[in-house]
Amino acid sequence: MRYDFGSDNTAGMAPAALDALVAANTGYARSYGTDDVTARAADLIRARLDADAEIRFVFSGTAANAIALSMLAWPHEAVLAHHAAHICTDETGAPGLFGHGLGLIGLPGFSGKIDPAALKLALDEPEVGHRQPPAALSLTQSTEYGSVYTEEELRHLIEPAKARGLGVHMDGARLANAAAAGFDLGQIARLDVDVLVFGGAKAGANCTEAIVMFDRKLARRIDNRLKQAGQTASKGRFLAAPFLGLLESNAWETGAAHANLMAQRLADGIAAKSTFVLAHPVEANAVFVRMPPEAHQRLNDLGWACYRFDDGSVRFVCSWATQEDAVDELLAAIATL
Amino acid sequence: MRYDFGSDNTAGMAPAALDALVAANTGYARSYGTDDVTARAADLIRARLDADAEIRFVFSGTAANAIALSMLAWPHEAVLAHHAAHICTDETGAPGLFGHGLGLIGLPGFSGKIDPAALKLALDEPEVGHRQPPAALSLTQSTEYGSVYTEEELRHLIEPAKARGLGVHMDGARLANAAAAGFDLGQIARLDVDVLVFGGAKAGANCTEAIVMFDRKLARRIDNRLKQAGQTASKGRFLAAPFLGLLESNAWETGAAHANLMAQRLADGIAAKSTFVLAHPVEANAVFVRMPPEAHQRLNDLGWACYRFDDGSVRFVCSWATQEDAVDELLAAIATL
Amino acid sequence: MRYDFGSDNTAGMAPAALDALVAANTGYARSYGTDDVTARAADLIRARLDADAEIRFVFSGTAANAIALSMLAWPHEAVLAHHAAHICTDETGAPGLFGHGLGLIGLPGFSGKIDPAALKLALDEPEVGHRQPPAALSLTQSTEYGSVYTEEELRHLIEPAKARGLGVHMDGARLANAAAAGFDLGQIARLDVDVLVFGGAKAGANCTEAIVMFDRKLARRIDNRLKQAGQTASKGRFLAAPFLGLLESNAWETGAAHANLMAQRLADGIAAKSTFVLAHPVEANAVFVRMPPEAHQRLNDLGWACYRFDDGSVRFVCSWATQEDAVDELLAAIATL
Amino acid sequence: MRYDFGSDNTAGMAPAALDALVAANTGYARSYGTDDVTARAADLIRARLDADAEIRFVFSGTAANAIALSMLAWPHEAVLAHHAAHICTDETGAPGLFGHGLGLIGLPGFSGKIDPAALKLALDEPEVGHRQPPAALSLTQSTEYGSVYTEEELRHLIEPAKARGLGVHMDGARLANAAAAGFDLGQIARLDVDVLVFGGAKAGANCTEAIVMFDRKLARRIDNRLKQAGQTASKGRFLAAPFLGLLESNAWETGAAHANLMAQRLADGIAAKSTFVLAHPVEANAVFVRMPPEAHQRLNDLGWACYRFDDGSVRFVCSWATQEDAVDELLAAIATL
Repeated sequence: MRYDFGSDNTAGMAPAALDALVAANTGYARSYGTDDVTARAADLIRARLDADAEIRFVFSGTAANAIALSMLAWPHEAVLAHHAAHICTDETGAPGLFGHGLGLIGLPGFSGKIDPAALKLALDEPEVGHRQPPAALSLTQSTEYGSVYTEEELRHLIEPAKARGLGVHMDGARLANAAAAGFDLGQIARLDVDVLVFGGAKAGANCTEAIVMFDRKLARRIDNRLKQAGQTASKGRFLAAPFLGLLESNAWETGAAHANLMAQRLADGIAAKSTFVLAHPVEANAVFVRMPPEAHQRLNDLGWACYRFDDGSVRFVCSWATQEDAVDELLAAIATL
Repeated sequence: MRYDFGSDNTAGMAPAALDALVAANTGYARSYGTDDVTARAADLIRARLDADAEIRFVFSGTAANAIALSMLAWPHEAVLAHHAAHICTDETGAPGLFGHGLGLIGLPGFSGKIDPAALKLALDEPEVGHRQPPAALSLTQSTEYGSVYTEEELRHLIEPAKARGLGVHMDGARLANAAAAGFDLGQIARLDVDVLVFGGAKAGANCTEAIVMFDRKLARRIDNRLKQAGQTASKGRFLAAPFLGLLESNAWETGAAHANLMAQRLADGIAAKSTFVLAHPVEANAVFVRMPPEAHQRLNDLGWACYRFDDGSVRFVCSWATQEDAVDELLAAIATL
Repeated sequence: MRYDFGSDNTAGMAPAALDALVAANTGYARSYGTDDVTARAADLIRARLDADAEIRFVFSGTAANAIALSMLAWPHEAVLAHHAAHICTDETGAPGLFGHGLGLIGLPGFSGKIDPAALKLALDEPEVGHRQPPAALSLTQSTEYGSVYTEEELRHLIEPAKARGLGVHMDGARLANAAAAGFDLGQIARLDVDVLVFGGAKAGANCTEAIVMFDRKLARRIDNRLKQAGQTASKGRFLAAPFLGLLESNAWETGAAHANLMAQRLADGIAAKSTFVLAHPVEANAVFVRMPPEAHQRLNDLGWACYRFDDGSVRFVCSWATQEDAVDELLAAIATL
Repeated sequence: MRYDFGSDNTAGMAPAALDALVAANTGYARSYGTDDVTARAADLIRARLDADAEIRFVFSGTAANAIALSMLAWPHEAVLAHHAAHICTDETGAPGLFGHGLGLIGLPGFSGKIDPAALKLALDEPEVGHRQPPAALSLTQSTEYGSVYTEEELRHLIEPAKARGLGVHMDGARLANAAAAGFDLGQIARLDVDVLVFGGAKAGANCTEAIVMFDRKLARRIDNRLKQAGQTASKGRFLAAPFLGLLESNAWETGAAHANLMAQRLADGIAAKSTFVLAHPVEANAVFVRMPPEAHQRLNDLGWACYRFDDGSVRFVCSWATQEDAVDELLAAIATL
């Protein structure tokens, strides 16, 4: 089975990430994220975001998102998110575990972007004691369906939420792909996002994501919070070093740009050489294709791992590691279906 | 500041671990722990333990222990542990978070080993509705104070606990050091431990520990449990590969043997060349020294990171990376205090 | 404002309940539910259900349901329920709090009854690690929309759930109304329900519901569980006495029969004297009416408290206390809209 | 068995409480604590406390305390309390459940009062990431061992805690007894307590306690919080009415004064007529007696329910219902031991 397009976490570490990890493996270092590698990686992230922020590295996006949400909403409150967001569909209820019963309210919208009218409806809902009122808005950039919010679109979601006192979380598991698609990272702080998960794993690191707390009040006793949550690395340098390597070398950006380019090549090829229709605009590194079950099955049988999503389409994901030849081989296989 | 003896997690990855991690970074791999590296590492652990078991790799000992305990006790129940156990004193209440209020009952005993008489008293305590009755016993091998339980000692704790229907958890963060001290790993299953945390980080891996479920019923829906807990590695091979390297090369054992030897050298030197007294028998890789605050402070001022523990003694820890020269330099420094 | 039809918890205690409560207020009694009144009330419930079971009295249906579900599903699992069930829509996420992140999966179906085909689809869903698989089925009898399951209907839901190993919970907040509508209470145990919430408050008690554990394994350390959950009554007799009074006098049944009759009278009147359409069959004590917002508003303005539900209809609820005259006055008001 | 002195919750409702409950059982009332009885009872509590505050009635002291603490401390923080406080020893870990892993740090001190020096030590403890730092101080008035804090004593505990930014909780399960002993209720707000549990059950009500939030920020979305916690009474008037009756009639105070007087009579009698020694000063309604196990057993055999506490003494509790004759009968029995 070929896993090239199964997800962007089937690829390994990018060379820059691995090299930095190997380089970090020298001598002794202070434990629990108080080492120099960690400090330097955090500096580079702050620079990318053009903002001050408290930053911690954790092991998984699931934990990063769930812990971030637990900073923004009480257990008796809820988080508004796109109904197809990773936190709603792919994290086994982690927000409920780390948020101790915190609710999720799924909102509709095309291609993974929350519809502003649906958000308005949810915000206008009168509060009652027997429901969990929304206390936070969660946005995914780039989205679960491979689209990228413009600053304008984000503003139209964040402003009404902030006006009601909601906190704002951004799941940036694929933030590098959004940046590569032209999204200005400096906007995140300027749009008044409270907590960002700055993605590492899908951008070529090992399993590591950064929690970025623009609102430093949220960072109060964050080290205790993360330790209790099992997300403090005793050998913290090994979480931060891959980030350091990717950011120092710009591989974080160039890898994502490559991934997006490969997705574009794949999308163009499907449009040109197959009868299949794209389910969503291809703005980042994923291609969603409307494909009947039989065709999907045949493609799997031909050795290509790929998965059907909740919207019924089949997803192909590119990464820093995707090779042009592999795209062409996949296209050739799709052409035979 | 020199961190050589501050902890056994100030050292990096052992060469065998790093090499295996680098080697695993080839091509695409299935995500979420379904890859071959993970399967092979689990096989090697089962072989070491001479037992069948369900095994999963997670990111931190804190999470591994807390999740293991949540399998053995309900929130309205408690876990018996030595009062100085890591779960009681150094994990910021993680068992309570993952166990949703699960209680911990601290038991006394010399040098980190639970006193069987104290255990008996706790087990004989009549159950009442307004307290959390014990549902599990947690043992640490080697202990927080650097001692190593004999099989006989473990049997005298496990048997009465099992007779009352308690589950048994073993925190093996430093299991390699216990093994190097002569503890037969095959006894763990034979003594009827239910869940073992098989330590990686302190044995020379990156941040990775294995949860070993001898009682496979406990493993029901373990992948859902770990995903929800933020402990599923999307790029699972990077958690398993260091284990693979350490176990294939026997560096897991030889590194621990070296660490124990260095601790012995340090202990012998302190006995021979200083007026300080050892606080606990040195059976594994840690040396605890009774040292007045001023002496401790002077040692820190001389550039040696080391920490005072709850029993009032100062701890020095050796690892696979500890150099003989460093031990001698530390001894020289101690001699000046 | 008149609250007669706003809910069945706007009524007070039925005379038999109050009398028993007053009678129980004599002398000293053992605390925490170990008194005689509690024992006798539990016996009467077992007799009604024609089954052995462990029984405890708690303060609220929200707690009773949430605690029952926490017995049947882990935090990383989910509960299947009608999407309009009280646990899904009206308990502020209590199952998530007491179940520590436990998920709820809403199923469709007419008039509050789960559609067996929808249940089958949910049960046939392949299990994956990143979702919460169903571990329990929750049924409401009578339903949130005033319908009553037949034994046949229940069997067609329970059997496939049990075949997959799911536990079954029944929310019987309005079980008395179902019984008054002809539902045989003895079927609950025979249908292999695991935990039942046997409703008191809506049947004329104060705030008290009974958790009935047919599967006694679920009752293990139930007193610890309830104490920790804040649901143990120090003066337990005051939770059990109203039940005792209602069950000894048969007011539990006759009150519900009266409530159902009044609902029928109301429904008949609406059909006969208004242009409004009933939204659901009236089989228990609630009447749901399709009514435009203006008409609803006018009715409120006329002094009648009544609420719009998620299906868009307006609900009127009768209770043991509902007076025929009040029904007729309400009908007269509705006729003017 | 005679339960007169087993606890102060073996007594029923005081006449004033029962009468008010019966009186409240008239007609329909708005649900969920929005009724007039609830409003009036809250007013009377505010008047007693000479302070503005948000007030809610809940079903149990366990829930009231645990929910209050969850307002003051995160799961990764801890609460300082006397090691013998009810929250530490008698609530089955409820603070951990409602606080999702929140820790409790037990402090020493004579007769249930926290030693200010011990508090200072705990507050001076340097914060580290791997422990739960204290975020709140919990005080019990009157204490678990029947003593009553003076205002001065409270000030010496609250001021240093507040100076470190801790919140303050007061468990007033037996606040009426403290008031009857001369404690000025107006001091609670003036001393800057954040949340008070104003006791009902032990003062002659049914199972009902009031959560008093002087810091109204803590009350944000309190109705959602309580609903999710299973502590919202659908028929709220039955929680508030007993309070209304006790406070309108002053039976809340006179009952407690009677209880204290009876405790004094018992204590005096023991001093005068037995060889047993009192374990604690008798300042409220409980008498703790140093009594060998055999004597305790004989007293139980004579039909007097009474329990041994963690300090080894045997407790006798008086209530509004305690009769002088019963005290004398108990004294006669004790004299025979």
